[in-house]
Amino acid sequence: MTDFAATKALFHLPDAITYLDGNSLGPLPKSVPRRVESMLSEEWGELVITGWNRAGWMASPLRIGDRIGRLIGAPPGTTVLGDTLSVKVYQALASALALRPDRKVILSDSGNFPSDLYMAEGLVKMLGQGLELRVVPPEDVAGAITEEVAVLMLTEVDYRTGRRHDMPALTARAHAAGALAIWDLAHSAGALEVDVTAGDADFAVGCTYKYLNGGPGAPAFIHVAPRFANQAVPALSGWLGHAAPFDFDLGYRPGAGIERMRVGTPPIIQLAALDAALDIYDMVTMAEVRARSIQLSDRFIAGVEAACPALTLASPRDPAQRGSQVSFRFAEGYAAMQAAISRGVVGDFRAPDIMRFGITPLYLDEGDIDRAVAVLGEIMETSLWDTPAFRQRAAVT
Amino acid sequence: MTDFAATKALFHLPDAITYLDGNSLGPLPKSVPRRVESMLSEEWGELVITGWNRAGWMASPLRIGDRIGRLIGAPPGTTVLGDTLSVKVYQALASALALRPDRKVILSDSGNFPSDLYMAEGLVKMLGQGLELRVVPPEDVAGAITEEVAVLMLTEVDYRTGRRHDMPALTARAHAAGALAIWDLAHSAGALEVDVTAGDADFAVGCTYKYLNGGPGAPAFIHVAPRFANQAVPALSGWLGHAAPFDFDLGYRPGAGIERMRVGTPPIIQLAALDAALDIYDMVTMAEVRARSIQLSDRFIAGVEAACPALTLASPRDPAQRGSQVSFRFAEGYAAMQAAISRGVVGDFRAPDIMRFGITPLYLDEGDIDRAVAVLGEIMETSLWDTPAFRQRAAVT
Repeated sequence: MTDFAATKALFHLPDAITYLDGNSLGPLPKSVPRRVESMLSEEWGELVITGWNRAGWMASPLRIGDRIGRLIGAPPGTTVLGDTLSVKVYQALASALALRPDRKVILSDSGNFPSDLYMAEGLVKMLGQGLELRVVPPEDVAGAITEEVAVLMLTEVDYRTGRRHDMPALTARAHAAGALAIWDLAHSAGALEVDVTAGDADFAVGCTYKYLNGGPGAPAFIHVAPRFANQAVPALSGWLGHAAPFDFDLGYRPGAGIERMRVGTPPIIQLAALDAALDIYDMVTMAEVRARSIQLSDRFIAGVEAACPALTLASPRDPAQRGSQVSFRFAEGYAAMQAAISRGVVGDFRAPDIMRFGITPLYLDEGDIDRAVAVLGEIMETSLWDTPAFRQRAAVT
Repeated sequence: MTDFAATKALFHLPDAITYLDGNSLGPLPKSVPRRVESMLSEEWGELVITGWNRAGWMASPLRIGDRIGRLIGAPPGTTVLGDTLSVKVYQALASALALRPDRKVILSDSGNFPSDLYMAEGLVKMLGQGLELRVVPPEDVAGAITEEVAVLMLTEVDYRTGRRHDMPALTARAHAAGALAIWDLAHSAGALEVDVTAGDADFAVGCTYKYLNGGPGAPAFIHVAPRFANQAVPALSGWLGHAAPFDFDLGYRPGAGIERMRVGTPPIIQLAALDAALDIYDMVTMAEVRARSIQLSDRFIAGVEAACPALTLASPRDPAQRGSQVSFRFAEGYAAMQAAISRGVVGDFRAPDIMRFGITPLYLDEGDIDRAVAVLGEIMETSLWDTPAFRQRAAVT
């Protein structure tokens, strides 16, 4: 049984702040500065170039990739770290398209994170060939999976509302139509019980600076289903994805399995921070994290709905259809969030009217939830909303 | 007048090591651990999500990009950091090809770093359309610049021999033939007096962990000539290259100028390390660094040729045609380099027979050069080369 008070003690949380923005950037695990200092002084400082082998730097994207893999149901050796999530989306998409050369449609939804759509748009524009990025509303995805579709590209949890797609069902539907499925787990990894194997995802990608607390700009991950691991064409065919990078051949030969999804030199300082942050996940099971997330989320929803009748739940009420964030709609949401932040409750705002709150059990407890509810209640009680005087005041706090 | 003893004092160099591998990975600047610790504890720890604005994280790829720009002759606002060099090569190449849609040949040379060729190969394979990557020997490049060529893609300094291409002359030739020129400055930035403006490069890319000492996996840079800055199609069209990333539009609109070459979330911890490392370049001029590099290189060449007649200079003897490394050929080079490393002289080896030595004036002086020469001389004097006994001994040291 996980001791969540113990995990909370492992984070540095700023004084007088209730941090409900871990769905955007996780807070600093206390172990990170020491680990990074050791990487800098003992590894880079003392080993210099030999650190690539003697400190295990070269192998670390795969070694730490497996730590992520464990959290998303990926077998060892099928997940690797590197680059940014946008770049990993591009690699997955280009690889998937090459596996379905006779089809022309990339299907996604308007709840996908815009960068995923932008990367697809850039790829479609560059490739031409009649390719099309088709974007439908989230609720229309299932019906839009036709035999035209080469690739279904979705983010499991909507970054605005927290609405969760049914990965196994949609993937099965894609496969039945002969399409492949790419899942972006940016808002899932470390938050939900993800199982890319049971869910039969062909490709999965995600970032590590949200629920996984790897720090600003922590590297992304990519998982390729074992059935495609030696078949996927990496598109971004960099030397560290080569079968023998240090042979310095002039021609590219893809590495074995997931190694081919590596591109350039891995960001070793960021990887050290992430590696330390992931130690916390060795203390928990995702089932417990998920259960606790639902418990705290339900408490937050009930509290806010009681205290702030003007706020409308934007997230699904059914926990099974929700990720690990809770969002409310409010016309003056931007100003209300500024007011909440000024009182130490940090969530964020997404236009036009979404107030987002990340529910992260590793460092949030009932006291935090109740404090957030109380602050939001106080803000809403001022009953100055929708007046110029309020807008004035919110702008200066 | 630069005080190179003062710059040397700013680096942590391992005890009893003469480090001649700064062309591969620069050593740790002493200021880096403190700066990174401050970024972690004071910025990430205390500001968390607000660090993106309040600590200037979001703007840092451009701000620090300008610090690199100053070293390569790029005007402010034309250089940005992010991703790895391989990814930046891909972006530059895809952008350049889109600017020359009627031409089919990417011209490069066999002295280019393999990853650049691999990235081009991957792009050509994906795009099809009759595109061709044409790789010629370095000495044949000028003659191969025909009107078929869309893009000339070269690394200025050969990673094995240190042979330096004439950037202004080859670029002029490319332009005269109607082609564009991409220059990889991995072995130039921070080592040579580079002037992308005078040299008229269309795109320039490079890494920051060699001469610039940004640490393992430090981000790459890309510069786009102002004439193309608002015209280049970034190919990897990520949200941070969008004109308004936080509008979260569903459609991509490229940002103004170099901003569009940004892709995903920047690696803030790596950037903090790089930013600290670059402070050292505020104390020097590239003219002085270059003059000192030539002085030390010539001393090294003279010393090794006197002490080690079996070693053959692989680098150009004329400093104007050489980067900031010196390479020698020796059939038993791998073993000899292992022996040198075991005696504290760290260079590296590239197959089949190249012993490489980076000459980096920021932290090397005459004493270091003379010590390296002495150690190489001692190793060569054992006169056990080409015998099984030697190979045995070299293998175990």
